[in-house]
Amino acid sequence: MNDRLSTTFSALADPTRRAILARLVRGETSVTELAEPFAMSMPAVSKHLRVLERAGLISRGREAQWRPCRIEPAALKDVDDWLERYRAFWEANFDRLDDYLLEVQAKEKKPVPKKRRGRKKS
Amino acid sequence: MNDRLSTTFSALADPTRRAILARLVRGETSVTELAEPFAMSMPAVSKHLRVLERAGLISRGREAQWRPCRIEPAALKDVDDWLERYRAFWEANFDRLDDYLLEVQAKEKKPVPKKRRGRKKS
Repeated sequence: MNDRLSTTFSALADPTRRAILARLVRGETSVTELAEPFAMSMPAVSKHLRVLERAGLISRGREAQWRPCRIEPAALKDVDDWLERYRAFWEANFDRLDDYLLEVQAKEKKPVPKKRRGRKKS
Repeated sequence: MNDRLSTTFSALADPTRRAILARLVRGETSVTELAEPFAMSMPAVSKHLRVLERAGLISRGREAQWRPCRIEPAALKDVDDWLERYRAFWEANFDRLDDYLLEVQAKEKKPVPKKRRGRKKS
C-alpha cells in the first residue's frame, strides 16, 4: 500500500485543483487572489486548498494576516518517479512511430522498388 | 475542464490498480493470472480493470476465450505531459540543493576565504 501516492493522485483528479496548481506555478498567492478567477466562494476554494495541502502538493505560510499558498514540488516529484517505470513504454512506442515515419519519408522520396513488394514470393 | 485527465488521476488513486499496472509492465496477462497475487475475488479484479479500461490505461483483447489485458501508454503519457510544466520546480529545487551541497563540500575541504564573504564591498 502506498497511500501517500493515492492521496496525491486523488487530489489531482479535479480540474479546479489542477487549475490552482497551474496558478501557483506563477508564484505564491493569497486565498483571495486564488479565488478570483474561479468565480467560487472562499469556503469552496479553502476546501480545495485543504485537499491539496493534505496531499503535500501545496503549503501555506504562517503569517497572521496573509497566508500565502505555494507549490510543494516533492509530491509531484513522487508522481514523476512513479511514472518512470512506464516511460519506457511510450518511448518505445514513439521509437516505433519514428521508424514508421522515416520509412514513409523514404517511400515518398523514391518509388518503392517492385522487388520489395514481392518479397514474400521471392 | 479536462475530464480525461481527472478520470486518469482518479483511476491511479488506488494501490491495487497501480499494482495491476505494475504487473502489466511485464507483459499482457489474463484476468485469472492478474487476480492470483492479489488474493481478491474475480469480480473485484474485474471492477478494477473496468476502471483502468475506462481511463484508457489498459485495453483488453477480443479473443473469446482469453481476453488479455495490456497497458495503453497514451493515458500515462498525458500525465507525463501535464507534469512537464511542474518539472522545472523540482529541478530548480535540486539545482539549489546541488549548489548547497557543493558549498558544503567546499567548506569541508577548505575554509571559505574571507574576501568571498566581503565580495559586495570590494
